[in-house]
Amino acid sequence: MKLLVIHGPNLQLLGTREVNVYGDVTIETINNVLTEKAKASHSDISIMQSNHEGDIVTAIGDAPTNGFQGILINPAAYTHTSVAILDALKAVSLPVVEVHLSNIYAREEFRHTSLTAPAAVGQISGFGLHSYVLGLDALIHHLTA
Amino acid sequence: MKLLVIHGPNLQLLGTREVNVYGDVTIETINNVLTEKAKASHSDISIMQSNHEGDIVTAIGDAPTNGFQGILINPAAYTHTSVAILDALKAVSLPVVEVHLSNIYAREEFRHTSLTAPAAVGQISGFGLHSYVLGLDALIHHLTA
Amino acid sequence: MKLLVIHGPNLQLLGTREVNVYGDVTIETINNVLTEKAKASHSDISIMQSNHEGDIVTAIGDAPTNGFQGILINPAAYTHTSVAILDALKAVSLPVVEVHLSNIYAREEFRHTSLTAPAAVGQISGFGLHSYVLGLDALIHHLTA
Amino acid sequence: MKLLVIHGPNLQLLGTREVNVYGDVTIETINNVLTEKAKASHSDISIMQSNHEGDIVTAIGDAPTNGFQGILINPAAYTHTSVAILDALKAVSLPVVEVHLSNIYAREEFRHTSLTAPAAVGQISGFGLHSYVLGLDALIHHLTA
Amino acid sequence: MKLLVIHGPNLQLLGTREVNVYGDVTIETINNVLTEKAKASHSDISIMQSNHEGDIVTAIGDAPTNGFQGILINPAAYTHTSVAILDALKAVSLPVVEVHLSNIYAREEFRHTSLTAPAAVGQISGFGLHSYVLGLDALIHHLTA
Amino acid sequence: MKLLVIHGPNLQLLGTREVNVYGDVTIETINNVLTEKAKASHSDISIMQSNHEGDIVTAIGDAPTNGFQGILINPAAYTHTSVAILDALKAVSLPVVEVHLSNIYAREEFRHTSLTAPAAVGQISGFGLHSYVLGLDALIHHLTA
Amino acid sequence: MKLLVIHGPNLQLLGTREVNVYGDVTIETINNVLTEKAKASHSDISIMQSNHEGDIVTAIGDAPTNGFQGILINPAAYTHTSVAILDALKAVSLPVVEVHLSNIYAREEFRHTSLTAPAAVGQISGFGLHSYVLGLDALIHHLTA
Amino acid sequence: MKLLVIHGPNLQLLGTREVNVYGDVTIETINNVLTEKAKASHSDISIMQSNHEGDIVTAIGDAPTNGFQGILINPAAYTHTSVAILDALKAVSLPVVEVHLSNIYAREEFRHTSLTAPAAVGQISGFGLHSYVLGLDALIHHLTA
Amino acid sequence: MKLLVIHGPNLQLLGTREVNVYGDVTIETINNVLTEKAKASHSDISIMQSNHEGDIVTAIGDAPTNGFQGILINPAAYTHTSVAILDALKAVSLPVVEVHLSNIYAREEFRHTSLTAPAAVGQISGFGLHSYVLGLDALIHHLTA
Amino acid sequence: MKLLVIHGPNLQLLGTREVNVYGDVTIETINNVLTEKAKASHSDISIMQSNHEGDIVTAIGDAPTNGFQGILINPAAYTHTSVAILDALKAVSLPVVEVHLSNIYAREEFRHTSLTAPAAVGQISGFGLHSYVLGLDALIHHLTA
Amino acid sequence: MKLLVIHGPNLQLLGTREVNVYGDVTIETINNVLTEKAKASHSDISIMQSNHEGDIVTAIGDAPTNGFQGILINPAAYTHTSVAILDALKAVSLPVVEVHLSNIYAREEFRHTSLTAPAAVGQISGFGLHSYVLGLDALIHHLTA
Amino acid sequence: MKLLVIHGPNLQLLGTREVNVYGDVTIETINNVLTEKAKASHSDISIMQSNHEGDIVTAIGDAPTNGFQGILINPAAYTHTSVAILDALKAVSLPVVEVHLSNIYAREEFRHTSLTAPAAVGQISGFGLHSYVLGLDALIHHLTA
Repeated sequence: MKLLVIHGPNLQLLGTREVNVYGDVTIETINNVLTEKAKASHSDISIMQSNHEGDIVTAIGDAPTNGFQGILINPAAYTHTSVAILDALKAVSLPVVEVHLSNIYAREEFRHTSLTAPAAVGQISGFGLHSYVLGLDALIHHLTA
Repeated sequence: MKLLVIHGPNLQLLGTREVNVYGDVTIETINNVLTEKAKASHSDISIMQSNHEGDIVTAIGDAPTNGFQGILINPAAYTHTSVAILDALKAVSLPVVEVHLSNIYAREEFRHTSLTAPAAVGQISGFGLHSYVLGLDALIHHLTA
Repeated sequence: MKLLVIHGPNLQLLGTREVNVYGDVTIETINNVLTEKAKASHSDISIMQSNHEGDIVTAIGDAPTNGFQGILINPAAYTHTSVAILDALKAVSLPVVEVHLSNIYAREEFRHTSLTAPAAVGQISGFGLHSYVLGLDALIHHLTA
Repeated sequence: MKLLVIHGPNLQLLGTREVNVYGDVTIETINNVLTEKAKASHSDISIMQSNHEGDIVTAIGDAPTNGFQGILINPAAYTHTSVAILDALKAVSLPVVEVHLSNIYAREEFRHTSLTAPAAVGQISGFGLHSYVLGLDALIHHLTA
Repeated sequence: MKLLVIHGPNLQLLGTREVNVYGDVTIETINNVLTEKAKASHSDISIMQSNHEGDIVTAIGDAPTNGFQGILINPAAYTHTSVAILDALKAVSLPVVEVHLSNIYAREEFRHTSLTAPAAVGQISGFGLHSYVLGLDALIHHLTA
Repeated sequence: MKLLVIHGPNLQLLGTREVNVYGDVTIETINNVLTEKAKASHSDISIMQSNHEGDIVTAIGDAPTNGFQGILINPAAYTHTSVAILDALKAVSLPVVEVHLSNIYAREEFRHTSLTAPAAVGQISGFGLHSYVLGLDALIHHLTA
Repeated sequence: MKLLVIHGPNLQLLGTREVNVYGDVTIETINNVLTEKAKASHSDISIMQSNHEGDIVTAIGDAPTNGFQGILINPAAYTHTSVAILDALKAVSLPVVEVHLSNIYAREEFRHTSLTAPAAVGQISGFGLHSYVLGLDALIHHLTA
Repeated sequence: MKLLVIHGPNLQLLGTREVNVYGDVTIETINNVLTEKAKASHSDISIMQSNHEGDIVTAIGDAPTNGFQGILINPAAYTHTSVAILDALKAVSLPVVEVHLSNIYAREEFRHTSLTAPAAVGQISGFGLHSYVLGLDALIHHLTA
Repeated sequence: MKLLVIHGPNLQLLGTREVNVYGDVTIETINNVLTEKAKASHSDISIMQSNHEGDIVTAIGDAPTNGFQGILINPAAYTHTSVAILDALKAVSLPVVEVHLSNIYAREEFRHTSLTAPAAVGQISGFGLHSYVLGLDALIHHLTA
Repeated sequence: MKLLVIHGPNLQLLGTREVNVYGDVTIETINNVLTEKAKASHSDISIMQSNHEGDIVTAIGDAPTNGFQGILINPAAYTHTSVAILDALKAVSLPVVEVHLSNIYAREEFRHTSLTAPAAVGQISGFGLHSYVLGLDALIHHLTA
Repeated sequence: MKLLVIHGPNLQLLGTREVNVYGDVTIETINNVLTEKAKASHSDISIMQSNHEGDIVTAIGDAPTNGFQGILINPAAYTHTSVAILDALKAVSLPVVEVHLSNIYAREEFRHTSLTAPAAVGQISGFGLHSYVLGLDALIHHLTA
Repeated sequence: MKLLVIHGPNLQLLGTREVNVYGDVTIETINNVLTEKAKASHSDISIMQSNHEGDIVTAIGDAPTNGFQGILINPAAYTHTSVAILDALKAVSLPVVEVHLSNIYAREEFRHTSLTAPAAVGQISGFGLHSYVLGLDALIHHLTA
């Protein structure tokens, strides 16, 4: 099983800044944990991070051709503004799990909803690094159930 | 570790009706899976289901006195209308994980937001029975991390 | 044919108070008229009144098991606030007719719409006691047509 | 007793099109059923159908002069856009019953409310041809009660 | 003079939790103070607390029969969601005073308005335990003025 | 000077009904008063009344060809719903004065604004029959100033 | 007959600025024309202009004591923001006519409605200086009719 | 192939007025161009113009009976207000193309959306007379593709 | 203890007009009652009334310098429009109690909320003259508790 | 005549996925058809597709320098979210035609309007591949008319 | 060059209160700094502060007569509520620069917009005392550029 | 002191187009003026322009690592749509000044607010090239004060 993990904008900064909001976990730690977990589940993950909406749209569109069977995505700020990512997710027939580090309901009003989630199987928010772990679990479970 | 699991209104009907929306899993199956998972994590769960907003408010308020250290809740329809459950969750100091069987973003507009989630650590929606399993995992992880 | 009649909150007060709004008909009169009409149609009705949203949700959920083939409901104040009753009505496969004593369009703006009616076959409002009679007629007609 | 029945715009097409939404009942059938029912109640009905808002406004305004004692109206699309029909109904002192073939709460959002219903005694929606029968019953009952 | 005091949902938790918001006054203290104040005014109070909207609706509906001449109510979370309590208060002819421990205008936007207050003589909010004392004073003054 | 006076829907009923709202002035009285006033100002008026939005649109469109130099209009209910009348008024280059019998700000919220007034020189509302007299005065003053 | 004329904020600047919007008529011209017209109607007018909401509120409140029988007011910018002027107009029992130089429907959206007009007999807008003349006519007609 | 072309309200005025907005093309020119183009495509068109919503509703409803296979419509002002035309278009099974002379997105906000377009195959706006030519092309292409 | 009492716009008219809404109590009576009550509590009150938002803003800003320890205010109409009074109340460190004669929730929608109350300790509305008495009690209690 | 054709995000996926919504036409087919049509009109087109909002903004800004005389654009998802593309289109003086494959009025509410269309000559939506053909026709017609 | 500086309501309190929000700069310091800066630019400034909307409206209206060539204004709370100041600024032909001490986008939602800024050349907010210095610079630059 | 200057989308076109809106200043002129001003202040600026939201997000995220101590940004169109730039600005601990060439309050409604400004020290808009000069002054003043 080959899975694509997508980190959205600003997540490259994780762990070194705004520690009070996002914790001190770095994106490398998240990636290492996910890689290990995937290996333990006999699946293979590719990870990308981009600040470009267009790069994320392209990666999603290419995912089936590139042999991916599922997508784990944290669209970050684009969750609330990107119809293009919504359309890309709907265009490909792969199962998608959306994750967020923080509880989006406990932040500003404009973060309480998600433009992209209607194209996902489900959404997990609020558990920090563990949101990703639960999301990978959910995605693999969905693909193998 | 002693945890309280709360099923909100109409969940007693699960599995025998609206199979196309909620699947054919019954509440007994969910409860059995959760009980086993809890046992495997050396934790102890109590499970209740109620169609009464007041019963749920009372159970949450009594949870600390009854020795519970965390709450796993599917507020179902009350997710979207109950300020009283929000206030109860905020009144007790226990960590709360909110779960939903279906992807709330893929249903009617009024289900896209949650009145109760701001009082939770996080929210998981869209994975059917597996939402509960992931939620229990998230709650135990939060309590032991 | 076995039918369930549900009176929502505050309807126990009917006839003795706010006579200018609701008329001087009591709930007993309504129940007697409905019972007679049902008998004349060779159908059998059970009547309940509750101020508890949870009781109404439970009664609806239990209706198929209890052998009811249709529901005549005046959700009263819960018409405008209860997603739980909406979900209960949608969860059971029985035909539902919603009735109101007063014309909901001639009252406060928040009473002009109905959260529960999308789960009904139809709605009748504004005819006082006669709304119930017409509703019973509509329900029996629907079941026998 | 002399009553006026008004069918609003597009109802002339009934029964031959959009059968999945409105059923296969034609306007002739409705008219025949209503005429028979009226006769059985010793009342006399006149029936008109018009696609013109102005014709309906005029007919309502002329109703008292023409000796009508009550109006049964399905304003169809004009339910949601016509202040002129609302004003006409309020201008005449006759009791009015508003009926709809389909359940307006189960259709597009803009059909969930009614501009014209505040001027009616009550409203009946969702029972197809039977909405008219119940409406005639309600009107006659109102006039004779 | 016989008065009914109603505490809404979550108020049973008062004083032991969220001390920074609601202070350390317990519901027992409030009840004792109210009882003394009532005695000093030669009036007799009965006090209830419920997390159930239905119980509160029933208690209000039964109040005239039970000989109460006025109601002092803190609807708590139901202030913002309960049309049923509004209807119950309007259905009985007793004067009602609504009180709140905290200043509802200094909290979340959805707490800035009250569904139930239109049925009250007046509303007092923001003075903690003293809101109840002022409310009892206002109610007795209203009944004896 | 040749002027067109247009009475909108339901105004044919004036004076014989809803006397408490619109007074007991009939449309004939208004027309007689306007005709006299026009004569006194050496101008010539043509008066029409229609319940048909389309008739009013046509009359406005034909006004320049028919030699009219100004329009005095009470669009009645169409004030609040007709983009077609707005477009007709804008399409012809004649000055327009809009009048209303009642004060539109003292009625239902949806009557507080006017779709058609942006195409007028000005609007006069609230003075009953005298609104027309003032409107004719304003129109003639505008044309001769 | 003694009448009070009130000019609201910025009207002291009339005629010397923004000539394209308000014309080149000065407030002195308006006052002279009104004084003459009043004299011709055997009525006596007092005229004030103030940029202070409070001055206008006071003048309205004092009007009955000062022997005024009616008020002609152009609240200018306060039309759209002053609840205090609305309350003052409602507090005194005098008939009020509201006038505006420009057509408020042809300007910015926030000028399309009036907070103060519900307390007036009627409103006249769009005819420049002639709005005042028509307004005085309407006020005298109202008082003598 | 027999097609129906419908011009909505005020379009009879085209070309002689508001030339800066709609250009100096007359409705006769449009009709001539369409007739020629239709002939060149071996199709037969009937053209109507009406200021009456009801006439347009009737014409659409009669179109199938009258042998039309498609409708080209410029609903003009009724685009933004007519649920009746929407319902008529949905009631008949013919393909519909909606056209507008001007770019509706470059005009007032209330013209940015279309009530009627959901019942059309597609919409073309902004190209003046050429909008009709493109619309006829699109309709014929749709019917023959 | 030295306290400032502020009456907002139009309150100088109290008691002689709109008796059905505000009762027949005059501002002198209110002031006398408050002065007596203050004396009984060994506190000293200064009372002002102004129709000028600016005067009220100035008085609040000067209050600390003038030795006041608390403010009792009925902002009347400015409750709903004055950010300047809100800012003044927040700028001074004195406790503030807001009072209203009438129940603001039982009047027009725009009176249901308060711009100024977030800067107050609490708000009391609906008890007529007694609102002031309760407010003075609440303010003194707050300062001495 | 040199024209620029811009395909927005996700259009590279056309024809191989979501065939039920967008049909089985590929972007290559569209490009081939457009190239042929352009050649037949003696014009020269350059075609680009990008998932990057910034690339599209740049291409539009460079268009005049690159010798283009007109732009045919399908902004896809960016139609509903991109002020930057709107600004780019307004910044260049070239005529623009906006096209959409599907009827945007028959999809989700947020697709019913267009941020970018106000900067276009006109918009064509709903005709699949033929939307592009009609758009090219419209653009060339606009440039040569 | 003669310039008018206007400080709006509550700014007289600056520096001695709410130091955490507005800093400890007093209005005297601001005035001294502005006076010096003006002198250095060979311009002459007059400074006023008022809590009265009417005073500010008057001062703006009188500014041209008083020989001022530009206005530097901090409308404070009136920024968000005063149409009268907007109208005054538009009525005079002088350039205006609006300044705010705090960043209005980082405060309550109702402070995020400005009623008065559309009448200004530009707006500067968030730099404390330095907002005034930059504003004076901008105003002089505008007048001399 | 090392500062980063960011020009958002379409600003590369400055000075050669839409001269009536943005003036004839080119981006080169702005950059030259800023460079000189910075040199005069003994600070060092780096300037970038990008049409890509992602490039701007990346540049902001890299700013601390690249040794920048402050950011001067004109987000242009992204001011109103980019949560990603807001998040980037909040993620880095550098002071930010937001500038706009035009007065955003004097343009379309959707430009009246700013998604990005809450993360800035302050905002300056409306002074053309001088907005940048003032912004650089404000930024340096903030860093050195």
